[in-house]
Amino acid sequence: MNAEIIAIGTELLMGELVDTNSAFLATELGKLGIRVGWMSKVGDDLDRLAETIERSWSRSDITITSGGLGPTSDDLTRESIAVVMGETMEVQPDLLEHLESIFAGRGAPMPATNIKQATLIPSAETVPNTMGTAPGWWVEREGRVIIAMPGPPREVQQMWSGEVAARLRAMVPDVTIVTRTLKTFGISEGGLDEMLSPLFGPENPSLGIYAKPDGIHLRAIATSPTEQEARALIEPVEAHIRNIVGDSIWGVDDETPESQVVSLLMERGLTLASMESLTAGLLAGRLADATSGDRVLKGSLVVLDSGQLEDQGVDGEALRMHGPISAEAAEAMASAARDRFGADVGVGVTGVSDGATGSGNPPGTAYMGFAVGDRTFSSSGTYPTHPSRVRARAVTQVLLELARVLRASALQ
Amino acid sequence: MNAEIIAIGTELLMGELVDTNSAFLATELGKLGIRVGWMSKVGDDLDRLAETIERSWSRSDITITSGGLGPTSDDLTRESIAVVMGETMEVQPDLLEHLESIFAGRGAPMPATNIKQATLIPSAETVPNTMGTAPGWWVEREGRVIIAMPGPPREVQQMWSGEVAARLRAMVPDVTIVTRTLKTFGISEGGLDEMLSPLFGPENPSLGIYAKPDGIHLRAIATSPTEQEARALIEPVEAHIRNIVGDSIWGVDDETPESQVVSLLMERGLTLASMESLTAGLLAGRLADATSGDRVLKGSLVVLDSGQLEDQGVDGEALRMHGPISAEAAEAMASAARDRFGADVGVGVTGVSDGATGSGNPPGTAYMGFAVGDRTFSSSGTYPTHPSRVRARAVTQVLLELARVLRASALQ
Repeated sequence: MNAEIIAIGTELLMGELVDTNSAFLATELGKLGIRVGWMSKVGDDLDRLAETIERSWSRSDITITSGGLGPTSDDLTRESIAVVMGETMEVQPDLLEHLESIFAGRGAPMPATNIKQATLIPSAETVPNTMGTAPGWWVEREGRVIIAMPGPPREVQQMWSGEVAARLRAMVPDVTIVTRTLKTFGISEGGLDEMLSPLFGPENPSLGIYAKPDGIHLRAIATSPTEQEARALIEPVEAHIRNIVGDSIWGVDDETPESQVVSLLMERGLTLASMESLTAGLLAGRLADATSGDRVLKGSLVVLDSGQLEDQGVDGEALRMHGPISAEAAEAMASAARDRFGADVGVGVTGVSDGATGSGNPPGTAYMGFAVGDRTFSSSGTYPTHPSRVRARAVTQVLLELARVLRASALQ
Repeated sequence: MNAEIIAIGTELLMGELVDTNSAFLATELGKLGIRVGWMSKVGDDLDRLAETIERSWSRSDITITSGGLGPTSDDLTRESIAVVMGETMEVQPDLLEHLESIFAGRGAPMPATNIKQATLIPSAETVPNTMGTAPGWWVEREGRVIIAMPGPPREVQQMWSGEVAARLRAMVPDVTIVTRTLKTFGISEGGLDEMLSPLFGPENPSLGIYAKPDGIHLRAIATSPTEQEARALIEPVEAHIRNIVGDSIWGVDDETPESQVVSLLMERGLTLASMESLTAGLLAGRLADATSGDRVLKGSLVVLDSGQLEDQGVDGEALRMHGPISAEAAEAMASAARDRFGADVGVGVTGVSDGATGSGNPPGTAYMGFAVGDRTFSSSGTYPTHPSRVRARAVTQVLLELARVLRASALQ
């Protein structure tokens, strides 16, 4: 079974947008054992779109498009599919009703142009879109499929996990794909590649290495008739990897640093508070965005003017003896945050995002303090990069260190 | 003059690599006034490669490939071009000598497989590669060109700026491209499309509409022999747009909501402090990430447990009378934030990110309060979407409203 991915939108051809949907879809199709034969990008032009979709329909079992489902006159994916299939688009009353209810919810009248988002052709069913107004299309004929999805990556990802992946899995012959992702932090991609080089040769399981914002991910993909056999193929590889780089593996599969922290806190019935200078609220924001994050995080105090740290409850002696950018200051900030919000655990983050400050610390230095019960811990990191990247990296490391501290802590 | 970009490599089809070369090349071609008609990705397969390059050769003046110039047996770009052109690859002694000297410099013997990196076909010249062993190919016949570049982005970028851009510029008639982006918030993409539909017809300037996290962007692109003429083409279109949707345009070109707020505060010599419940620190984080943001933002208090608002200095009467999720609470939070950090301007954000809360407000409701001098203002928004999207949208609206308040405020 082979697939073809078509990313649609003139802005892609103008380089205004880097297409990440195609790589996401290719990865996910791989997990289903579906090979991608072609990928293409095409602008918002009916003839070129129809030509591209026609070619894909003629040579690929599965065609997946992203983009061009918007309401405007240059959103032409539906029209192009209708041309290729030789069918006519018709407005579906139930879809129209749903669409109007979305706009009603926004307290705005629905522009007439949106009506085409409520259309189908006879061979098409809708794929629900819980994150936008444009439902997807699932077009199936003669055992072949065209799946049309919107452009925004989060809508593509939701549609994929919500329905598309399951429907495609049902179509592929009896082969089970099992993937296992090991997430590391602290070792470079090149370093891991060297340490694990013998493991990258084999085809089944195949091992891939990917640089991500939260570190380097190692993904093993095994294919077998049964899930059990596939898992049996992966186990020795995972064991081998853990033997070599076990200490730097912080999580697996869908785990994120914030999801780990939230579940550890909830298991232990603990609440969290933070004081942030370097990360300026991004730590609190990332925790709040995690599922149930707002149930464990009581609050955060963001202090960008270090002269105010003492007024905000940070131990003045620690600040005077070690300066506001130090491990001791981070620990004092952690204790102050915990006390101010009456939380069980406190976190403090200070550091230097750029060269601007007069402190003796190199740019990209982060100090993170943790207050658990009556004990405090601290840790540090250096990320010599752009200030906003420094903040993001620091947030990730704080979350990973906090998870480590919580696992180690006796508090239950 | 139109161009087609082909990214080559099976790893691209497996989603293991996000192709950034194509977007880079498309942007650069645009600056030369060369329109990209198609982009495609194809694996390391001679037949598919030849088919794809053949199609491009037949319909595009300029074909640019990246990838497949390596030494291994699955690097087949040269071979495919030779097939399409019906010409034979021949080893060039001078290229071979150069290649061997590179390996000698590395103190390693040259693997035999690298010899093909020293080949050309009669219609091809080399494009020097100062960053790798693989020279590019410049193939020109019948006024059309195929340019073959390696895969690594830094090699592509060096070849582009080193030689390719100059040679292409010499081929295209004198054109200057001027773009103008108008950024709106508060009107849906469909609504704008409807209100401005007559403007989307013309080719020069062409008008594009793009949904972005900070609202809907309208981009006009004009092509002319001189920059002055190109600007003259855009001016009446911009004037027309401003007449119709002027109130919803908050910025142009590279401006962001946060960059506007920071520069307005700096112009007026004002500092800012915020208290965030709904946005959980993301407002502070986004301001801190903006250039000089940490110079105007003194701090932010993130309070996720509304029971703590009063302890954190928010007027208890406002909370009791109107509840913690209300315009009045947002204004009281703004005043409290300003006082606590001794700032000139205070901002407060409260709301409901999901259905979980017991308040009478629909999910996705945000209230934003502003305290400037001795006056307070408030505003609200509703975004019925995923909680993390609600926070992001709220941050954007807060920043846009704050910019409005600052422009209007008498404070200097």
